[in-house]
Amino acid sequence: MDAYGTTQCIVNGDTNLPDIPLETTVKIEGTVALRPKSMINTNMTTGEIEVVINDLQILNTASNLPFHLRDYQKPKEQLRLQHRYIDLRFPDMQNNLRQRSTMLHNMRRFLVEKHKFVEVETPTLFCRTPGGAREFVVPTHHAGLFYSLVQSPQQFKQMLMAGGIDRYFQVARCYRDESTRPDRQPEFTQLDIELSFTNLDGVLSLIEQLLYTTFIQDIPKPPFKRITYKYALENYGTDKPNLTYDLKFKTIKHLFCDKLNDSNFGAYVLPYPNELGKLTTKYKEKIRELIKKYKTKVVLYENISKELSVELFNKIQDTIGERNSCIVSLGDNENACLCLGEIRGFIATLLLSKNLLKINNAMVPLWVIDFPLFVKGENGLETCHHPFTAPHPEDIHLLQSDPLKVRSLAYDLVLNGNEVGGGSVRVHNAELQEKLLKMLNIDNTKLLHFLNALRSGCPPHAGIALGIDRLVSIACNAESIREVIAFPKSHEGKDPLSGAPNFINEDDKKYYHIVTVD
Amino acid sequence: MDAYGTTQCIVNGDTNLPDIPLETTVKIEGTVALRPKSMINTNMTTGEIEVVINDLQILNTASNLPFHLRDYQKPKEQLRLQHRYIDLRFPDMQNNLRQRSTMLHNMRRFLVEKHKFVEVETPTLFCRTPGGAREFVVPTHHAGLFYSLVQSPQQFKQMLMAGGIDRYFQVARCYRDESTRPDRQPEFTQLDIELSFTNLDGVLSLIEQLLYTTFIQDIPKPPFKRITYKYALENYGTDKPNLTYDLKFKTIKHLFCDKLNDSNFGAYVLPYPNELGKLTTKYKEKIRELIKKYKTKVVLYENISKELSVELFNKIQDTIGERNSCIVSLGDNENACLCLGEIRGFIATLLLSKNLLKINNAMVPLWVIDFPLFVKGENGLETCHHPFTAPHPEDIHLLQSDPLKVRSLAYDLVLNGNEVGGGSVRVHNAELQEKLLKMLNIDNTKLLHFLNALRSGCPPHAGIALGIDRLVSIACNAESIREVIAFPKSHEGKDPLSGAPNFINEDDKKYYHIVTVD
Repeated sequence: MDAYGTTQCIVNGDTNLPDIPLETTVKIEGTVALRPKSMINTNMTTGEIEVVINDLQILNTASNLPFHLRDYQKPKEQLRLQHRYIDLRFPDMQNNLRQRSTMLHNMRRFLVEKHKFVEVETPTLFCRTPGGAREFVVPTHHAGLFYSLVQSPQQFKQMLMAGGIDRYFQVARCYRDESTRPDRQPEFTQLDIELSFTNLDGVLSLIEQLLYTTFIQDIPKPPFKRITYKYALENYGTDKPNLTYDLKFKTIKHLFCDKLNDSNFGAYVLPYPNELGKLTTKYKEKIRELIKKYKTKVVLYENISKELSVELFNKIQDTIGERNSCIVSLGDNENACLCLGEIRGFIATLLLSKNLLKINNAMVPLWVIDFPLFVKGENGLETCHHPFTAPHPEDIHLLQSDPLKVRSLAYDLVLNGNEVGGGSVRVHNAELQEKLLKMLNIDNTKLLHFLNALRSGCPPHAGIALGIDRLVSIACNAESIREVIAFPKSHEGKDPLSGAPNFINEDDKKYYHIVTVD
Repeated sequence: MDAYGTTQCIVNGDTNLPDIPLETTVKIEGTVALRPKSMINTNMTTGEIEVVINDLQILNTASNLPFHLRDYQKPKEQLRLQHRYIDLRFPDMQNNLRQRSTMLHNMRRFLVEKHKFVEVETPTLFCRTPGGAREFVVPTHHAGLFYSLVQSPQQFKQMLMAGGIDRYFQVARCYRDESTRPDRQPEFTQLDIELSFTNLDGVLSLIEQLLYTTFIQDIPKPPFKRITYKYALENYGTDKPNLTYDLKFKTIKHLFCDKLNDSNFGAYVLPYPNELGKLTTKYKEKIRELIKKYKTKVVLYENISKELSVELFNKIQDTIGERNSCIVSLGDNENACLCLGEIRGFIATLLLSKNLLKINNAMVPLWVIDFPLFVKGENGLETCHHPFTAPHPEDIHLLQSDPLKVRSLAYDLVLNGNEVGGGSVRVHNAELQEKLLKMLNIDNTKLLHFLNALRSGCPPHAGIALGIDRLVSIACNAESIREVIAFPKSHEGKDPLSGAPNFINEDDKKYYHIVTVD
């Protein structure tokens, strides 16, 4: 038995077989024979035949396996990762890795053969990206000097655009030191794409065709649905809504006459079938936590009359229809949405488990566009996407006067509630880029090479990066990205196989001019 | 003008064009017209037409370019690398990067489509490889604990064999901290291949077909020539001989009657055409340095009678023929060969420059096999390839009694004097592997996961890694691997674009629990 199948081998009555432990690798010479009719197994592709063993040679004996390769007794993940070389023999792991290879190969064929893209490998040892995620540092033999491991090839791919590689892609290894976030890996893979002389529509339709052509499950025919960030927020309470089912907010702000002029105030209701009944204490507790987190007012269906008013209850009931209950969320518009968005998530799970909500499609990809260019951070403006994102041309006049109102030309690709890709039209004008960096309080001097690249006549360009680990895990119906990575790290970035990270010896520390401290 | 070609655009007499600096990106709308007959340029694919400009829009103005994009005034490499985003616009750089992409894509198609290989991405953040090259270390948030950046996916690919991914490959990023070696990069790319249930012939013929199918220049039809390490040493004085020309040693040990029984003694002569004449002082100085380095005796043609004897001179002349001069190298067999091998290198260059030696073929690939398993190191036995290489089955009985005589099942692929690949049949038996590690004084406890993988019934397997940077540079006739890498580091591992490596801030040091010292 291996990834290609299983064949029954039998021994002639008079042959003596040695005692062979399970999972031992053997070489068998024999004669393929039809099985007796009564023994034919129509569930197996090789069910009609068997091999009568003439000669059997043990190539490598398996000993002391830590677990059996039986799907019905799959061990805990920690043990599986610790002995990944055995775990990989499970049929689902074989399938996941092979499908991953197939998907990436087909993506490359699509890009190279059909669309004349050039795959360029860019360095991973680079300088720190100002204003990004935490990057691993790599000490060098030169005292005090460190490389940073790139969090993405962003600067390089834009410099390639300046360099005349007008259609670039790379299956790129990226690094982020986010050991505390669950289901993240310190190193991950993205399909990184950038092209010159294009626009938002150009990138979106390219990626739609790419996915439609290479995704290993059925996916709707392009164009994919596009919604704005504002629409996503005010209807689903998230910028990555899962639209495999219909469950949407309604605004009821018009019912709050005294707040109509308060542009920050938001009031939303999430309707759901009466049959769900009252929420259990567990979920009520969850909602209490969300209220604290978002500083909003959330009112359950049974409390609306009491906590708001009977009059309002009746108006809300009119809005949502007789057959529905609902949950109401009030407060700062964004927080009211985000809070109700999290509630939408677990209400959907409850409804699905009780067959009160139907799945429309197995795969629902969509684009979220019109993100804000900036968000308010602790120390002034922060970028919503990254500092190289172009402002929306319709809003560029607001850049000085009302920067938080400026939309960007960024886009996210969302698949079943997961952000599987993101990108933007980039700034190609050095003066505009400098202005944006200044607004973001990012030190220009760290990006002189990049600004000079724009100044060298860099063509207009746009791009995207797809998160391959997540995308493949969805395609393979895997529960976590670790199921589609051959040798993933476990929580806290530990390698269960080798025990890495490890202590290093004093010679290495001396060579790299470092001392470790607690 | 871009990578796809050049088109002449003209302005109608009465149109006013703005002043446009060179390298500016413009958008032109116009009418394609036939050129006047006298203006047709048959050297250009677009030489028969021109575009009459109706509308011209400046998309991005180029300013303050540090150099011109004229092949005849190509700037120094340092300046080119510092402004790589402009340098990449040179036609040869465009060609190199695009050819690299094409070659790798074709290699993938060959492996995936024709030979059912699976591309698997393996981690780069791992534990230290015992007994290998110096590896970069990456500090983590856990005080004192470091990852190492892998120098190759060796352990992972063998664990994949244990895991039933029986035909693995990866275009793998690898890291070595060898900043002092010229023409090396701290990160480089190898085509990493491993397969189960194969042998030396299986790997060699696979790679021959791979190269024959995907190499962008003509390459001889497989099978490629195979020579043993001993033959390479005693005929060319190197384990990576350049066989594009015929220039070979002859042994003259038989002329030294008193040394016949000294198995360590070697005597070789390198014949070359008389027309080369005497070596200049510069080359004589080089030879003096080599004599020091290898502690050998080297005798120039004109000195043989004097330094050895007239009788010996006559016998040597008989051996090499009337029309040849020669250089003699005597001493410890290996050193005599290596010393004469280096001399062969510059004698060949001299002969080629004077048309006294002819190039047989543009590309001459060959295999060097039968390497020794061990070499004598300062502290006992060291591995010649790496510790997972299988001993030659014919020599395995010598493992205890005479380990330095044991050949291995390692192989190197040599192309025009460059080692472009290397691999071996691996040890798949855990007991043998443990024994070899012990002989090499390598701590088993750092490889328990690996030994357990072998013990889990791992099939017999073999593999190879091809150095893509070098291979592509040869294919593109590039002078250095830096010419086929988009953003290479310069000497000492510095990034001329961004200035990396850089100082990091105190917060980062604190987060990673390190202090830097001089």
